[in-house]
Amino acid sequence: MPDYPSKILQDAVEAISSLPGVGKRSALRLALHLLRQPKENVHHFAGAVSALADDIRYCSECSMVSDGEKCSICADSSRDHSLICVVESVRDVMSIEATGQYRGVYHVLGGIVSPIDGIGPSDLTIDRLVARIKAAGGQVEVILALSGDVEGETTSFYIYRQIEPYGPRVTTLARGLGFGDDLEYADSVTLGRSIANRQVFKP
Amino acid sequence: MPDYPSKILQDAVEAISSLPGVGKRSALRLALHLLRQPKENVHHFAGAVSALADDIRYCSECSMVSDGEKCSICADSSRDHSLICVVESVRDVMSIEATGQYRGVYHVLGGIVSPIDGIGPSDLTIDRLVARIKAAGGQVEVILALSGDVEGETTSFYIYRQIEPYGPRVTTLARGLGFGDDLEYADSVTLGRSIANRQVFKP
Repeated sequence: MPDYPSKILQDAVEAISSLPGVGKRSALRLALHLLRQPKENVHHFAGAVSALADDIRYCSECSMVSDGEKCSICADSSRDHSLICVVESVRDVMSIEATGQYRGVYHVLGGIVSPIDGIGPSDLTIDRLVARIKAAGGQVEVILALSGDVEGETTSFYIYRQIEPYGPRVTTLARGLGFGDDLEYADSVTLGRSIANRQVFKP
Repeated sequence: MPDYPSKILQDAVEAISSLPGVGKRSALRLALHLLRQPKENVHHFAGAVSALADDIRYCSECSMVSDGEKCSICADSSRDHSLICVVESVRDVMSIEATGQYRGVYHVLGGIVSPIDGIGPSDLTIDRLVARIKAAGGQVEVILALSGDVEGETTSFYIYRQIEPYGPRVTTLARGLGFGDDLEYADSVTLGRSIANRQVFKP
């Protein structure tokens, strides 16, 4: 007697449990849930997932996921195309868009330099960023919005060295205590940098 | 600007978040994970899920999920076909099989009588259970292995009334303190019933 009463069920459980953070037990629960759904729903689900592989494209400008040749942000002429925010992933774009505070465009690297994961600068879209800056004659501001860990800092530094010769203004995200944060619970690195980078008080 | 940069991504996130216990945020994480996988993997995933809708069958005998007309348990002549364990779902069969202690066959009800969810006796496979018992001339033991809550007890009682005229032996799971459980932490209903149903000590 195999663990699963059906090879088809077992295949589905194995496929679902290959997703990150989904164990065998949850996968079985999800498979049995799908089994109880009307056929159309299951086909709709499978179709929506297949479309991720088949139909999604990447913006020719910023490498953001897109339904067409250009993403909706790059295609929007009301946005400031001289302001390029460099991020690691699609999710970062969505996080920044959700703030409603940014009116420039993006450049999605598709990862971060990480020798331990075997990701080098050539695996990222850095060449295309350089090409965009060249094409604009350097008349752009590039915001390096990468994470604050070693990999993020390394990647930022590498990109800075690559783009600096073409004359863009290069900035990075403000870092310091979070708004509303208590001094008592701040880590000492953050607190120390917040003092070093103190700003003029605007009442 | 929509919340999602791509309709295709949005469709996938919505499909994935329709699964029970998967929120929008996890669904986005899973969709972006799938997006980074090779095409074949995504197709394999979608195919395995589609197969749940298209290819899975239910055993003509016990209503267990099955790849063929009969499930592997009902098709196994080394099992005791005069011992029928009645369970709510496929998952219960898998739990009991995992114990390795049971050599009889099963009958999967496909649910439990629950007026609040609109599930009546006619939505379950009770008629087919009655037919199996009739076909065996009543020479079977039926183990009612349903949950111990009100719905489970009601369903057990209803089934008992339906099958009792055909003369099977009807039993139910032993209930009491779990093996290794401490008296101190047992709930009073379980403890009370464990005393009432006390058994001969076998050293």
